[in-house]
Amino acid sequence: MTEPVLKIGVIGLGRAFTLMLPTFLADPRVRLVAACDPRPGARAQFQADFGGPAYDSAEALAQDPEVQVVYVASPHQHHAAHTRLAAAHGRHVLVEKPMALSLDECDAMIDACEAASVHMVIGHCHSFDTPYLECRARIARGDYGAVKMVHALNYTDYLLRPRRPEELSTRDGGGAVFSQAAHQVDIVRLLAGTRATRLRSALGNWDSRRPTEGAYSALLWFEGGAYASLNYNGYGHFDSDEWMGWTGEMGDAKAPTAYGAARRKLKTLPTPADEAALKAAGTYGGSAYHAPARTAADAPRAAHQHFGAFLVSCERADLRPMPDGIWVYADEQRDFLRLPPPPAPRLEVIDELHNAVFRDAPPLHDGRWAKATLEICLAMLRSDQAGADICLRWQTAA
Amino acid sequence: MTEPVLKIGVIGLGRAFTLMLPTFLADPRVRLVAACDPRPGARAQFQADFGGPAYDSAEALAQDPEVQVVYVASPHQHHAAHTRLAAAHGRHVLVEKPMALSLDECDAMIDACEAASVHMVIGHCHSFDTPYLECRARIARGDYGAVKMVHALNYTDYLLRPRRPEELSTRDGGGAVFSQAAHQVDIVRLLAGTRATRLRSALGNWDSRRPTEGAYSALLWFEGGAYASLNYNGYGHFDSDEWMGWTGEMGDAKAPTAYGAARRKLKTLPTPADEAALKAAGTYGGSAYHAPARTAADAPRAAHQHFGAFLVSCERADLRPMPDGIWVYADEQRDFLRLPPPPAPRLEVIDELHNAVFRDAPPLHDGRWAKATLEICLAMLRSDQAGADICLRWQTAA
Ligand SMILES: NC(=O)c1ccc[n+]([C@@H]2O[C@H](COP(=O)([O-])OP(=O)(O)OC[C@H]3O[C@@H](n4cnc5c(N)ncnc54)[C@H](O)[C@@H]3O)[C@@H](O)[C@H]2O)c1
Ligand SMILES: NC(=O)c1ccc[n+]([C@@H]2O[C@H](COP(=O)([O-])OP(=O)(O)OC[C@H]3O[C@@H](n4cnc5c(N)ncnc54)[C@H](O)[C@@H]3O)[C@@H](O)[C@H]2O)c1
Repeated sequence: MTEPVLKIGVIGLGRAFTLMLPTFLADPRVRLVAACDPRPGARAQFQADFGGPAYDSAEALAQDPEVQVVYVASPHQHHAAHTRLAAAHGRHVLVEKPMALSLDECDAMIDACEAASVHMVIGHCHSFDTPYLECRARIARGDYGAVKMVHALNYTDYLLRPRRPEELSTRDGGGAVFSQAAHQVDIVRLLAGTRATRLRSALGNWDSRRPTEGAYSALLWFEGGAYASLNYNGYGHFDSDEWMGWTGEMGDAKAPTAYGAARRKLKTLPTPADEAALKAAGTYGGSAYHAPARTAADAPRAAHQHFGAFLVSCERADLRPMPDGIWVYADEQRDFLRLPPPPAPRLEVIDELHNAVFRDAPPLHDGRWAKATLEICLAMLRSDQAGADICLRWQTAA
Repeated sequence: MTEPVLKIGVIGLGRAFTLMLPTFLADPRVRLVAACDPRPGARAQFQADFGGPAYDSAEALAQDPEVQVVYVASPHQHHAAHTRLAAAHGRHVLVEKPMALSLDECDAMIDACEAASVHMVIGHCHSFDTPYLECRARIARGDYGAVKMVHALNYTDYLLRPRRPEELSTRDGGGAVFSQAAHQVDIVRLLAGTRATRLRSALGNWDSRRPTEGAYSALLWFEGGAYASLNYNGYGHFDSDEWMGWTGEMGDAKAPTAYGAARRKLKTLPTPADEAALKAAGTYGGSAYHAPARTAADAPRAAHQHFGAFLVSCERADLRPMPDGIWVYADEQRDFLRLPPPPAPRLEVIDELHNAVFRDAPPLHDGRWAKATLEICLAMLRSDQAGADICLRWQTAA
């Protein structure tokens, strides 16, 4: 019995799309039928690779009758408008994280999808990674007692990677809170399980050439009394993948000897325009673009993707999701629950989308879920400014 | 040229004394001349080992004219009274951490020592450990720019070790905040360097049989804009010594296979009295006491002591103190600055005390320094209750 196929039209053929492409290529439940991007090189590449039309306007893509699901992979500031456009044409929507830049935008997106009776899934987000989903499932079964404390830590070179100018301006949706906390908060919420209630944060913004948040620490409280500590540092010094068995965010084996590569590359890019050009060159259809393997069988073996170190302390055990399984540090003994490696990356996103579209199964990562994560990200920005806790109002449970 | 000798009288021959004994034995700058303890077995052992008198009252010890420095290693609740007694007799004082249980007690101790013109050093505390002191010295030299973010994490079996009843009652000075944050806060303050300004915390207290804080997370802000995230979990599941090269708190090589030992032992101790008796049996003069090596040459080789993982993010490098050196993750490269192993543990405490007593050099770990650490510990207890930041008033800089 073959599964029905999701006919996807893509808005934005940039880095996010490039990272999802191996998934789309590997999964027979997906067909890329159309795309749109202002970059002619990306459009030409799409037409060559997939045969389908590549438009220069999102409006044209949304109108294309072949398109069943619109994948909104344009920059943050366009997510709301592109989602509403897709819903207005009756298309389901897969929106990249962060869902949008304001809670009003989230509401408008939720309303538009409800009015049109289409599903919205927000992803890819690392909270789709199987080790986190598996931790949540085991905790929900009651194996370890209630969650009491979650610790999250990720030290990366996020801020040093080549960026578009708005990615370095918080007002325009740039910085580690919008881009990286969107993952970490989502995972912490998934692991904690209950509704978050309040947040306190401290933000780090200490490179005057890249004047946006490169780091943060935050405390997050949950109904039932659990709390979480979230910690991120994207300034490219210590690399916490050391604590993940030197497996990188994409599940790839990482060479600790490549230390400092992002900073060295950045030094060769004197202007913001150089930097944006290099980012574009490396993405789909760019001059330095390398196509991924066309099938899962040809793809390099990788572990599960991840977003740094997490420690979930339950009453009777600590759980530690890893790229190849879950450490369970229980009262009597510690065990490593090995997870089979993924046949291809990020299939969990397609699982959820496919179940929503064809079985009408409510997705975990729906609009209200992702709005709650954005509320926490916005609260992180406000709490540091206000010097006080921010109470949360729009939270949902896992 | 031989150094003058500190003639030390000990109040409290328990676990703290047992942990300091290898230092006292190894360091020719120290002579143990008298002691006091209510436990007859401990007194007999002291007399047998050192020849000096062992009293059953602190008053008698303080009066002994041979005693030049009183080492206050009695339970927390006695630190203030024992310090004032020592000062009243003109003795210098080495007080175990935490300095006391209230800021009023700290003030009375500081006043008493100042009135008597004697020095007070608060220690041992892990902020004496050479890798932290060396990090501070390098940062102070300006090698890496200003400190911006500190991350501290320690997951241990602290709460499962055998305890006296008051060690499990927060009101009586028990729990991880008084006992363990006293170390972690001290180290974070040392690494950050400037005065702390405010604190927000979340406390974990989830084992009804041991109803005191077993865990916490906290945010701590500093003058100049740095912030720190402090995280502790003493419930005996995940062991963060994994991230310290499997070196334990005492600088000892640790067997990861001994997982769960503290919990298994605790199961054999049905009542609080059994537990207190086992604790006493294992300390100096107890029935299960093992004497340490009498000289540094005979002692097992150990690395530097430590208190879990620390990441100090400066403008141009992250520093990571380890038991055998310091990782410096700088802009261009990462380097491991190997530190020579310590000839004996905790000599840094004697260095500071000796310099104070014989050279009148103001100690880093003086009364005002330790009062500032206690203020932060008390603020941790209050912030969680109040659900808000606590502003700090009595802070000092490193
Ligand atoms: N889940 C992940 O792992 C992940 C990774 C990277 C980016 N993202 C998210 O994806 C989104 C895009 O970021 P990116 O890094 O891919 O940026 P990018 O600059 O690499 O790609 C954006 C693409 O959108 C195109 N575009 C710009 N304006 C458009 C418009 N009005 N209509 C159609 N296309 C338009 C650009 O030409 C470019 O090809 C962001 O929201 C980001 O947070 C997610
Ligand atoms: N720095 C460290 O690594 C470290 C380690 C353990 C304890 N400590 C500190 O040392 C102090 C003692 O804790 P402990 O674990 O050694 O406890 P403990 O119970 O093992 O030892 C306390 C000792 O003091 C004696 N004592 C009790 N009341 C006394 C009194 N009124 N006068 C004289 N002696 C008295 C007890 O008989 C016992 O021998 C605490 O403040 C603790 O925080 C520090």
